[in-house]
Amino acid sequence: MTNALDLPTLGRAARAAARQLARLSTDQKNAALHAIADALSTHQTAIMAANATDLAAARESGMNAALLDRLSLEGRLSGIAADVRSVAALPDPIGEVIDSTVLPNGMQLEKRRTPLGVIGVIYEARPNVTVDVASLALKTGNAVILRGGKETIHSNRALVGVLQGALAACGLPAEAVQFIDSPDRQYVAELLRLDRYVDMIIPRGGAGLHEFCRQNSTIPVITGGIGICHLYVDASADQAASLEVIYNAKTQRPSVCNALDTLLVNSQIAADFLPRMAARLRQGGVTFRADPRALSILNPQGDAPDVQAAVESDWDTEWLSLILGVRVVDTLDEALDHIAAHSTAHSDGILTANTAHAQRFVEEVDSAAVYVNASTRFTDGGQFGLGAEVAVSTQKLHGRGPMGLRELTTYKWIGRGSYHVRA
Amino acid sequence: MTNALDLPTLGRAARAAARQLARLSTDQKNAALHAIADALSTHQTAIMAANATDLAAARESGMNAALLDRLSLEGRLSGIAADVRSVAALPDPIGEVIDSTVLPNGMQLEKRRTPLGVIGVIYEARPNVTVDVASLALKTGNAVILRGGKETIHSNRALVGVLQGALAACGLPAEAVQFIDSPDRQYVAELLRLDRYVDMIIPRGGAGLHEFCRQNSTIPVITGGIGICHLYVDASADQAASLEVIYNAKTQRPSVCNALDTLLVNSQIAADFLPRMAARLRQGGVTFRADPRALSILNPQGDAPDVQAAVESDWDTEWLSLILGVRVVDTLDEALDHIAAHSTAHSDGILTANTAHAQRFVEEVDSAAVYVNASTRFTDGGQFGLGAEVAVSTQKLHGRGPMGLRELTTYKWIGRGSYHVRA
Repeated sequence: MTNALDLPTLGRAARAAARQLARLSTDQKNAALHAIADALSTHQTAIMAANATDLAAARESGMNAALLDRLSLEGRLSGIAADVRSVAALPDPIGEVIDSTVLPNGMQLEKRRTPLGVIGVIYEARPNVTVDVASLALKTGNAVILRGGKETIHSNRALVGVLQGALAACGLPAEAVQFIDSPDRQYVAELLRLDRYVDMIIPRGGAGLHEFCRQNSTIPVITGGIGICHLYVDASADQAASLEVIYNAKTQRPSVCNALDTLLVNSQIAADFLPRMAARLRQGGVTFRADPRALSILNPQGDAPDVQAAVESDWDTEWLSLILGVRVVDTLDEALDHIAAHSTAHSDGILTANTAHAQRFVEEVDSAAVYVNASTRFTDGGQFGLGAEVAVSTQKLHGRGPMGLRELTTYKWIGRGSYHVRA
Repeated sequence: MTNALDLPTLGRAARAAARQLARLSTDQKNAALHAIADALSTHQTAIMAANATDLAAARESGMNAALLDRLSLEGRLSGIAADVRSVAALPDPIGEVIDSTVLPNGMQLEKRRTPLGVIGVIYEARPNVTVDVASLALKTGNAVILRGGKETIHSNRALVGVLQGALAACGLPAEAVQFIDSPDRQYVAELLRLDRYVDMIIPRGGAGLHEFCRQNSTIPVITGGIGICHLYVDASADQAASLEVIYNAKTQRPSVCNALDTLLVNSQIAADFLPRMAARLRQGGVTFRADPRALSILNPQGDAPDVQAAVESDWDTEWLSLILGVRVVDTLDEALDHIAAHSTAHSDGILTANTAHAQRFVEEVDSAAVYVNASTRFTDGGQFGLGAEVAVSTQKLHGRGPMGLRELTTYKWIGRGSYHVRA
């Protein structure tokens, strides 16, 4: 299993499998998804044994509890199988005619949705992602090349074996799900340059992984997942209701990309609102990094241990924890400028009763998701009703924000003529 | 003018201008486009003088006639101005609500079309592209950073000056049209890594430029423009009509990406059809590279000077000239396999009366444009009714095939709630 891998061979096999997948009917794909869900149950013992091997090694190496929890499949396999069945139940975007027209010369032209082909996915030590991504790809007729975190290699080997077996049992090419069966990081770099066979790279992980992919890939990369998210509390906001939105955005799941990072508060209400805000957020264990004006309100005596003076880099930090940056601004424009300078264009919102301010905020904030009187936590494929989410993109090409099944597709133009020539 | 350029400064200015452009109404953008068209006339003398300087230098350096023709603005300026007015007349895609829904929790969600932001365009010595791209970008609320061929630097400097002047006269930011005013190639490499400020790179040029961009860019690149295009003549095809389609695809404009490169002919009709095909295409001055079976039909005595034996690399060559690869295949599957192996996924077609074969071809050929009984030459934004074309993409993300105004846009998600929190 630790032999040198030949990525071009693996890519070529994935490409060949993709050609076959592109021709499958929705029923064939759904049957394979149900076969995969069944196989996850049938092979539960082997999968859990492989996962136990990974967990033991991870514990030995001192992995922290949060990461161990993400690595563990304990009690989760039936949920993962249920998710696969949910993907089967989603509408199939492939084959959809997006546009059709008859040109003045009589030629029929249509734009039809097709699979992308081969998708490379690079992720951390979360074996559930292996099944999740493979099933979304299969539903959209795409082959995948998976590269999960090295700590989960036994789990992934077992899971991919089950997936491939289920595909083969349905008469589909096992090569549709490829797996880089090596912890060696050189293969990540190699995968990123396999542009001959791979159509899209999805990194799922931290800022470092996204940056590495962008710097080194010759294949289009869906970058995202990094959210420095803002809420601006306008002078006209319903303050009591705003407290609950801020509390939700900051504390409901602080470790994720759509959690709140920086709160901007209009100076007209700061003296009144900031102490109420701090009192509410302290209930969730939040601590604060405040600009000078916010500091003078939240920590006038300098004796509040949970309010520190913000440094400039704090505004460019995705906290992923119970820390909140707080800044007082005099105007909507000042809030817009702060967001333009520091947002990662993921999710930003305004809390206001002023329609004109809401409108300007919506028009001018150039982020994947822009909210009026709502929590940033809504930026999510499930919340948006996409039925699935393969990534949250913060770039602007192809897909922006939550990417569902449709964002795993492309289209082709089909021209049907009667021996038409161009004049 | 030959001072060192500071690309980050230029990028920052473009980004700031883009924020302003994003807020313009359609009327404001159209007024600016008409002002640009007017200014091109007003400043005709200065523009033509600058172009004459470029032409003189190019002649001195021995530039060939075809390239000189592309470089020259002689007699073309009013046409270019008319094209700008045509862009003003096109519908504005910005602001279009692509999708809208009310989520089960009552939050309103919409997907609204917005500008991309800043677009970098790298192109050859064609000054008309400078105005063309700038006007399409302005119509879609995007700023551009232009990098034209070094042979056209005086023309581009003059044109960009006129464009910037017209923008400023309309009260719009002149920095919306940025120009890399240096022939130094290091700036191309620098532009490709300006990911902090640039959202998309469009290379317009040959395979070498596209490959350079893909290898060196940290910004999403629209690769394309390279077409190894195929037509497959099925046994059931109307042969007389097919001759005209092939003639059109090969000879109408052999130097462009949607011109025919390889003809695949079913073996059942090859003995009859190939000589007729050769006779017809010789009228256009076409010469042939034939596989052994085609060679035995087209050049049985070995005395036809315009029919050579094809070598393997010929199937991977975009001819851009009056050369045609010819190969005999026994089945549709063999044709599909050849296309899968050698097509650049630009434009491929089948000539057939067999509906099942047409259907399989359309389903299985994974190219940006797939034709049934039509010339590959139709792959073009104008022909497809897009009203404009900024590039022809052969990659699968974002835009595929001819890219019009819509492909210069992205979208944002807008959520409007009543202080909604995520449960």
